[in-house]
Amino acid sequence: MKNKFFQYIQQLQDTITSKLEEVDGSVKFKEDVWERPEGGGGRTRVIENGAVFEKGGVNISEVHGPLPLAMQQYFKVGEVDFFACGLSLVLHPKNPMVPTVHANWRYFEMYDKSGSVIDSWFGGGQDLTPYYLFDEDAIHFHEICKKACDAHHPDFYAEYKQKCDEYFWNSHRDEARGIGGLFFDYCKTSEEMSMEDWFNFVSEVGNSFLASYVPITEKRKELPYSKEQRDWQEIRRGRYVEFNLVHDKGTLFGLKTNGRIESILMSLPPHVQWVYDHYPEAGSEEERLLEVLAHPKDWV
Amino acid sequence: MKNKFFQYIQQLQDTITSKLEEVDGSVKFKEDVWERPEGGGGRTRVIENGAVFEKGGVNISEVHGPLPLAMQQYFKVGEVDFFACGLSLVLHPKNPMVPTVHANWRYFEMYDKSGSVIDSWFGGGQDLTPYYLFDEDAIHFHEICKKACDAHHPDFYAEYKQKCDEYFWNSHRDEARGIGGLFFDYCKTSEEMSMEDWFNFVSEVGNSFLASYVPITEKRKELPYSKEQRDWQEIRRGRYVEFNLVHDKGTLFGLKTNGRIESILMSLPPHVQWVYDHYPEAGSEEERLLEVLAHPKDWV
Repeated sequence: MKNKFFQYIQQLQDTITSKLEEVDGSVKFKEDVWERPEGGGGRTRVIENGAVFEKGGVNISEVHGPLPLAMQQYFKVGEVDFFACGLSLVLHPKNPMVPTVHANWRYFEMYDKSGSVIDSWFGGGQDLTPYYLFDEDAIHFHEICKKACDAHHPDFYAEYKQKCDEYFWNSHRDEARGIGGLFFDYCKTSEEMSMEDWFNFVSEVGNSFLASYVPITEKRKELPYSKEQRDWQEIRRGRYVEFNLVHDKGTLFGLKTNGRIESILMSLPPHVQWVYDHYPEAGSEEERLLEVLAHPKDWV
Repeated sequence: MKNKFFQYIQQLQDTITSKLEEVDGSVKFKEDVWERPEGGGGRTRVIENGAVFEKGGVNISEVHGPLPLAMQQYFKVGEVDFFACGLSLVLHPKNPMVPTVHANWRYFEMYDKSGSVIDSWFGGGQDLTPYYLFDEDAIHFHEICKKACDAHHPDFYAEYKQKCDEYFWNSHRDEARGIGGLFFDYCKTSEEMSMEDWFNFVSEVGNSFLASYVPITEKRKELPYSKEQRDWQEIRRGRYVEFNLVHDKGTLFGLKTNGRIESILMSLPPHVQWVYDHYPEAGSEEERLLEVLAHPKDWV
């Protein structure tokens, strides 16, 4: 399974970066291949200062070796070996009318001393962070998420949509990071789902990514915007930074287990503002966004 | 003592904000008085878009009541009442030749059920974060810190300078946030120091703040700078954000104990950049700064 999923994400990275380069039309991804001293490494692809994408990364990694101490404590296990691989992407568009998107799909294995697998699971999800809310875009994104889920289990969409709203919650601001999507973790063999079934589910979700995001980007990337709207985007990007650095388990994990800093923090937006005690005008589009973020909605 | 120190920081806030308004010359601090539902409150003073200070805050707070659960766990105590008051300041100048500065001086008391004080201590410090390193400025800042320490104990400067270098360490970047200053905590009654002695020490340090920072600001605030130098400042401000949101105990504490978010996060810089895998040119002033941050120096 580990080879199968790793092959899958390598191919998916190619598919996604090719399509995004086509959407951007002006710049290409820059590739950095890196090695992890303790075992494994990754292929980071970053796009910067494009016509559409101001900054973004589509990264894969495959790491293995003795489970780092912080992760032993987190998973409540002793000294075991592990394997983990996954694809992570974040795209920060230049135009505030185009939403930021994040996705991550991953597979994890742990081994006993003899090298036998003692545990394995899939995890991942994707979520959308608009600066200006077009209801039809939020509906489109969630419809694609639902379709991928529905092909595998009737309960998955409702369950993982709810988990996404819970996970991407900026508790110190009492608001969601964005309008959600899917979030699933510890997807293990059960009566209903074999690991093969989980692979089929996760790869269906991964394969649906471009269909969920690219049409929104195409529809909004040429819209005009003012300096005030750009400022609003940069202020909201500040909330994105706050979530990633204060609450996001994946980011903190990476920072505390000697991950490759530049690959982890490529998720941070290019230009960001913090304005003291900023509130949008009553009745504005900006205020409407905040209301939706404070009370996550059902979009489909 | 609590009334004495609270009176002191109220007066110190006035002294500091008046002087900084004079240094800025173009804008005034905006004051927000707030109340904490569980007891106490604060007086936040924020300056934005000044000629010298792009963003900054000089805040005092006095909070009391039952010790929040997160703090009970942190201090390893049961259900007790507490009192805490302090002054916190952060100044982000516009000109990259002027360093960012942070300071905090605080006093803490805990009480048993009968209302008797069971523990009390002072804490605080100040530190400087330059974007371009003028050795004479770093020396001046540390000399003023040392002079305030030396008036109270021959070991304080060496000890608290060292603690400052250790505390303001961005471990995930393997570099210091800035060029340090002082950091002290849990300053309690001992054979050598009564609480009265500690008050005299902490207030001497607080009183020395303007002498440590204002001459540097006056000397650098009119220096010309390029767009590239401004970009460098904004990239380095990203490291400041990373420290405050990932490592700073005070910030995380505030966010997790229902503090006033806007007063806590006024410490975040106004305009910030994250550029993927950015390194300064070999032999540049920017690279010289990084070398000093990777290997904290003795300045006096």
